Amino acid sequence: MRNLLYLLIGLFVFQQQAIADQYFNVFSPDKKLQLNFYLSRDGIPYYSLNMDNASILKRGRLGLQIASGDSFDQDFELDRIDTISKSEPWSPIWGEEKHIASDYIQMLVSLRQAKFQNRLFQIEFRLFNNGMGFRYLFSDTTVLTNFIICDELTSFPLSADHKAFWIPGDYDTNEFVYSYTKLSDIHSLKERKENDISFKSPISDSTVQTPFTMKTKASNFISIHEAGLVNYPAMNLDVNRTDFSLKCNLVPDPHGNKAYLHSGDRSPWRVVLVARKAGELLTNRVVLNLNEDSKLKHTDYIKPGKFVGVWWEMHIGKSTWAYSKKVNWNHDSDITNPSGKHGATTENVKRYIDFASKNKLDYVLVEGWNRGWENWYGSGLERIFSFTKSYPDFDMQGISDYAKSRNVKLIMHHETSAAVTDYEWQMDTAFKLIAQFNYGAIKSGYVGKIIPRGEHHDGQWMINHYNRVLEKAAASNLMIDVHEPVRPTGLHRTYPNFMACEAARGNEFNAWSLGNPPDHETILPFTRLLGGPMDYTPGIFQIKMNAYDPKKSEQVHTTLCKQLALYVTMYSPLQMAADLIENYEQRMDAFQFIKDVPTNWDTSIVLDAEPGDFLYMARKERDQANWFVGAITDEKPREFLLNLNFLDPEKKYQATFYRDADKADWKYNPMEYEIDQKKVKSGDKMKIKLAPGGGCAISILEIKN
Amino acid sequence: MRNLLYLLIGLFVFQQQAIADQYFNVFSPDKKLQLNFYLSRDGIPYYSLNMDNASILKRGRLGLQIASGDSFDQDFELDRIDTISKSEPWSPIWGEEKHIASDYIQMLVSLRQAKFQNRLFQIEFRLFNNGMGFRYLFSDTTVLTNFIICDELTSFPLSADHKAFWIPGDYDTNEFVYSYTKLSDIHSLKERKENDISFKSPISDSTVQTPFTMKTKASNFISIHEAGLVNYPAMNLDVNRTDFSLKCNLVPDPHGNKAYLHSGDRSPWRVVLVARKAGELLTNRVVLNLNEDSKLKHTDYIKPGKFVGVWWEMHIGKSTWAYSKKVNWNHDSDITNPSGKHGATTENVKRYIDFASKNKLDYVLVEGWNRGWENWYGSGLERIFSFTKSYPDFDMQGISDYAKSRNVKLIMHHETSAAVTDYEWQMDTAFKLIAQFNYGAIKSGYVGKIIPRGEHHDGQWMINHYNRVLEKAAASNLMIDVHEPVRPTGLHRTYPNFMACEAARGNEFNAWSLGNPPDHETILPFTRLLGGPMDYTPGIFQIKMNAYDPKKSEQVHTTLCKQLALYVTMYSPLQMAADLIENYEQRMDAFQFIKDVPTNWDTSIVLDAEPGDFLYMARKERDQANWFVGAITDEKPREFLLNLNFLDPEKKYQATFYRDADKADWKYNPMEYEIDQKKVKSGDKMKIKLAPGGGCAISILEIKN
Repeated sequence: MRNLLYLLIGLFVFQQQAIADQYFNVFSPDKKLQLNFYLSRDGIPYYSLNMDNASILKRGRLGLQIASGDSFDQDFELDRIDTISKSEPWSPIWGEEKHIASDYIQMLVSLRQAKFQNRLFQIEFRLFNNGMGFRYLFSDTTVLTNFIICDELTSFPLSADHKAFWIPGDYDTNEFVYSYTKLSDIHSLKERKENDISFKSPISDSTVQTPFTMKTKASNFISIHEAGLVNYPAMNLDVNRTDFSLKCNLVPDPHGNKAYLHSGDRSPWRVVLVARKAGELLTNRVVLNLNEDSKLKHTDYIKPGKFVGVWWEMHIGKSTWAYSKKVNWNHDSDITNPSGKHGATTENVKRYIDFASKNKLDYVLVEGWNRGWENWYGSGLERIFSFTKSYPDFDMQGISDYAKSRNVKLIMHHETSAAVTDYEWQMDTAFKLIAQFNYGAIKSGYVGKIIPRGEHHDGQWMINHYNRVLEKAAASNLMIDVHEPVRPTGLHRTYPNFMACEAARGNEFNAWSLGNPPDHETILPFTRLLGGPMDYTPGIFQIKMNAYDPKKSEQVHTTLCKQLALYVTMYSPLQMAADLIENYEQRMDAFQFIKDVPTNWDTSIVLDAEPGDFLYMARKERDQANWFVGAITDEKPREFLLNLNFLDPEKKYQATFYRDADKADWKYNPMEYEIDQKKVKSGDKMKIKLAPGGGCAISILEIKN
Repeated sequence: MRNLLYLLIGLFVFQQQAIADQYFNVFSPDKKLQLNFYLSRDGIPYYSLNMDNASILKRGRLGLQIASGDSFDQDFELDRIDTISKSEPWSPIWGEEKHIASDYIQMLVSLRQAKFQNRLFQIEFRLFNNGMGFRYLFSDTTVLTNFIICDELTSFPLSADHKAFWIPGDYDTNEFVYSYTKLSDIHSLKERKENDISFKSPISDSTVQTPFTMKTKASNFISIHEAGLVNYPAMNLDVNRTDFSLKCNLVPDPHGNKAYLHSGDRSPWRVVLVARKAGELLTNRVVLNLNEDSKLKHTDYIKPGKFVGVWWEMHIGKSTWAYSKKVNWNHDSDITNPSGKHGATTENVKRYIDFASKNKLDYVLVEGWNRGWENWYGSGLERIFSFTKSYPDFDMQGISDYAKSRNVKLIMHHETSAAVTDYEWQMDTAFKLIAQFNYGAIKSGYVGKIIPRGEHHDGQWMINHYNRVLEKAAASNLMIDVHEPVRPTGLHRTYPNFMACEAARGNEFNAWSLGNPPDHETILPFTRLLGGPMDYTPGIFQIKMNAYDPKKSEQVHTTLCKQLALYVTMYSPLQMAADLIENYEQRMDAFQFIKDVPTNWDTSIVLDAEPGDFLYMARKERDQANWFVGAITDEKPREFLLNLNFLDPEKKYQATFYRDADKADWKYNPMEYEIDQKKVKSGDKMKIKLAPGGGCAISILEIKN
């Protein structure tokens, strides 16, 4: 379905001091965004972006430098410009919306350099009503058959000293707490006190990561990210604190090179999202729309769902991933000295399977099932983990049979300890084992320093690794949930078996570090989640860690009801109910919300939002009339008027409200909650109160006659 | 079979200036070699070696430096010394000898450092009659569970300015022409004119590679190498031109680290071979004896043999590896623009199968069968080659069926273009394909710059790769012949499916470079081949390249008969008959030798030898009475008296002599030869003449009554 409309292009040549520019522009379908392309007298390409006649981006540089010196940077002459209007609506097999519109103007700029007449360099722009993307194309007709990118010159010159929501630039991790400062106040190396990230590679004091979200004085929002990151390193941004421009900073390989490409290759999309209010960012689908359609032929096995697992009990110290007290290097030798604290025992796993089955949860994750956990952390070695050999107290066949009999699927866990070459080496055998035992998905992990040595989590080699795993998993009918990868860029459109990833500071930090401040979950949807779903692992009911050990002072920075609300505000098609079974069993009234809330939606509505402060959302269950509301706040208490005008006026609903108790408070009284029910209809209005650091979750289920 | 004999150890403490040493020694079983171990007052371990009461190695340093600073280098105290005498004869399933003796004295020195009392550091010496080995053991009881080697301090201080046979130290290649100079004249960066090695990483002007072979003034020979290179980088040697000591120089990883180890690990063996005449080096089995026994449970599929293949025709330019004239990056797309020169066509391969079948050769190699050759060289990219997708004119099923019907096995070719991670990624699928089509072996190649980027051909990561491939190949019943790997260290004892490798300058250089000087093959057995068999690809009959193209001046630096003699002097269990079928068909009388000569032996005898000058050998066919003689010379003509005293006096033989014609000469008349036959018996003597750059091959076949 394509509406083709050829447009006239504005073409001007104007004199400005000594620079004679060629200048072209196009407007978004609604005419509110204006994209300008310039070619300077030196043949350097630039672009700029306006919204509502005001500048969003000033003249930003375009181009790349090549290691051989034959760079795509200047001396360009215009070959042609092709402009076309497109409408490409599509329907994801899972997601926040059932149908997604995609209307844009494409402008393809073809450039040549006098000294490389056979070489075509193209910049493809796509201008939507709520954002834009552009990428570089290295044409098939080029004589440069393969080449090394040593720098990308792309810049994003902002028009003023906006307020920015940012985490420090880093080649290996994104598990930071967010800061929000003016652009001129960004100091990435001046970190908060936490020192609890396993491995970092900071870049500079002025480098930040994407999605990089800003709020202007006029209360517009801008977010800069990328889409379709394939065969290229991730982009960090170097912030110029004086002129507020951002420059692309690509993750290097061990030689300092950025990307190895050949003719016919493309860069990923550089993306600028714009919004006139915060909530619009959350329903902005430009990142997804810039990604390619699904490459998977078979998708029957892809099933969004909820899971429990042998996991939080290790984080809180109740049990261990490791089986033995003794370091054990050889997986072919017998393993001795059981510590007695091993979590992934057959008996314990069956308990989780029973709980999942009883409560109609779809999956059970088991971490610590396989050999290697005694000595895995930070050794820098390969062959740490076996991905095929289980501990002696984990009966693979028995557990698999049991899960099948209970109609529950298992999630395979693969912690690679970042020994990625070793993981690839074992992968085919490991995937065969998974198929044999009927697992539905893999949760993988990449904690530590990458092997191949000198590579980074976010470099080209690792990007290719993550994407190759998606392909190999698809060939084995497996879904993927990756921890410690590069942040996502909408590739779950192309690989719908890519269900979720971590790529941010997850709930686990609350168990053993200074944790995530109460505003953390109000920022993530406006930054990290713009790229794709996050396996944040919500649903912690026992919020104070001193319940397990009186010496502990850690806690989740939340009320219990906020944990429930996260199932609505923090989208993932695979959602964990992360807490211990025993904590749920004591509060099955509250757990009812987790049982009810789906992981796949028809529609998503932002009721109101301000990043760093609060987020109120409503979502309609996929192919059902039921609605779910999630409202969360930072450390401040809030009150808002919920208008149920989104409900179907033809239908009747039973609403269940999971509210913070009057005296609830994330710090002093986090676990007190109230549940009440009433019949509601479209247009009903009601006050919702949120405790400091609190939240409210509401299920609104259709009453069928 | 172990003869255990506990020995008394000489223990002396002597004062020498301010240094109080502890001193211990042991003698070889024949008492001719004396190994001394010292612990200096600073707790630094040293060793030295004498032969016939003369110094071979002066006091050489022992120990290693660790990146964390807690080095195994000094402040050692002696914990204990255990000495034992062992006799461990064994029988390889293929090789130069059917039975190998292994008699040695083992001295295990256990050391501790005061500040690391829980940490045990051991040096295991094994002293044979004709050499020694030692290695470092990092005990299981150490508290240092994992650690990084940043330098190995091992040194080999020679007693005088010996004549050395050497190639330049390099982290990535060993395909050099040999130099022979005094130790004091070694200048590794002052190379010969050739500039035809695909990728080099020179180290320094005084670094050389092992096996590093020297001749003393007393005409003794010493060769320094290593054995059992597993999970550790290869050793180069830094030559001190003034004091004639050599220091270990390990191949680094991208961080500059050398090896990542854990407690329980061991270094490879540092090996010193000694010989009172040159020929003794060639029957020295110390390298093999230091390697571990076979790890393979099934070895039925391991079958030494000879092969022809679609290979030399590409080197001489008759055909091409590539199918298309057009660069083709996507192996899933159709391939177009056939050049018409593609070598690996179904028809051509069948021709080779027919020839092999008719002449009872065992295997046919096919290079250029798979997608990717259009753009493979030096791109630095992954995903260059498909290891599963053949060119459209190569019918995998048809060829496989045809080979089977002709009782010939195929050899799979895998050129990795050094994109090793990509090869590992595809390996399981590729090996499945090989099994499906009934191939017997893999010839792999590693041309170019290694991916993982920043790793080297001879670094720890690659060493692990080569060895892992041997394991995976064994699990698929496949033999391995590796090109462009690290030089071998006797691992074919442990993995008898490791048939051969290149790891030196092979015959192919003669087709398109300045080539290999006539002395090249007289040196290789004394250096490179001390580590293991080489796939040198002998048997070139059309020696002048201008036969193919009058503009060409290249040639093989040999006579035709020398090419035949190489099948005896240059051992490999997989031997190629490398030339074109049409060249053999014109000279089937000479080809008869290649048909007759086996690739597996009962016994090997060096009749006379001088590295760089000549080599005369006789070998007895495995489990047969037949003998084969090979004699080669450098650029000088030679004559020698062949005494057939090695023949069985009880048997009668028919000898066929393949001799250089009277006027034969490697340069001016390389292809003229004479063949004559006569009956011979034990004790017969005859003059054998070799042309300049020539050779003589003799088959001595039992006449059965």
